[in-house]
Amino acid sequence: MGEITTIAEGRYLGLYERDDWEFAERPNAEGVVGILALTARKEVILVEQFRRPMNASVIEIPAGLIGDEEEHRDESLPDTARRELLEETGYQAESMELLLSSPTSAGMTSEITHLFLATNLQKVAAGGGVGGEDIRVHHVPLKLLPAWLSEQKDRGLLIDSKIHASLWLAGQCDHGLQ
Amino acid sequence: MGEITTIAEGRYLGLYERDDWEFAERPNAEGVVGILALTARKEVILVEQFRRPMNASVIEIPAGLIGDEEEHRDESLPDTARRELLEETGYQAESMELLLSSPTSAGMTSEITHLFLATNLQKVAAGGGVGGEDIRVHHVPLKLLPAWLSEQKDRGLLIDSKIHASLWLAGQCDHGLQ
Repeated sequence: MGEITTIAEGRYLGLYERDDWEFAERPNAEGVVGILALTARKEVILVEQFRRPMNASVIEIPAGLIGDEEEHRDESLPDTARRELLEETGYQAESMELLLSSPTSAGMTSEITHLFLATNLQKVAAGGGVGGEDIRVHHVPLKLLPAWLSEQKDRGLLIDSKIHASLWLAGQCDHGLQ
Repeated sequence: MGEITTIAEGRYLGLYERDDWEFAERPNAEGVVGILALTARKEVILVEQFRRPMNASVIEIPAGLIGDEEEHRDESLPDTARRELLEETGYQAESMELLLSSPTSAGMTSEITHLFLATNLQKVAAGGGVGGEDIRVHHVPLKLLPAWLSEQKDRGLLIDSKIHASLWLAGQCDHGLQ
């Protein structure tokens, strides 16, 4: 009861089974951080990148894996969130607050996604990602967000629901009606 | 370029690769529907079930796979959402509105989760799930939701962020501050 067996393991993702239920897990990581970054001028900082599983570009909050790089193995969760935000967007966050630790997709994977709110931001680098990442950074005024996301959808991009989840959790809901 | 190779396939979940990127996919399904169900009295209908990948119970919006059962193969997306809501909670929804089709987890899987808003609800059956599902149904007044979710977390349950995402998308944000 409860024992995990390995069906197959790739380099980055594995297929496992517990009590007759198959699920995926990243063998080299301990979860994911996602960061809702809000500037003093009430802009949301979003990233756009081509996602090979989707075979499409996706608009998302900045995010990254926990514990997948040897040199960052002992980081705290907020520090991982700070580093990922900086790498992807060039923003340093003074305040990094945990909003929710949610299953990434409870029926498919054992992974947890930790959603953070980043505020008191300072632009200190170019952003764009590391190690082959090709990330475009967008600054979107919160009050224009529904219209802007709708435009992105119309030009063929996918929109990730962690944007909306973290906005609700952060109480940034004045413009929730689409 | 773009070709998919199979690393391994279980009965319900497979491990694939495209352009050197590994991802998971359910070979017998075409995505997921998730349903935010709101009663006339502004209650949110949530489900609680033990999720084997997480090895824990999780509070979620009702949800289900698309196209995984032969007899429902030709259903529309809203009809799949209606059926899953009925099976899990016993509620029939007159109105079923698509809020967003989001990647389930863009770096890990090719799957799309379609989030719906269900209103004009009528209780017509017991709910609780089908085929071995063991689902507990909760009716939570929207204005008490943050406090209620916090209580569930305190008793060891995990909270799924699709709850918050669909509330934002549905404009149900008056009580977003935790």
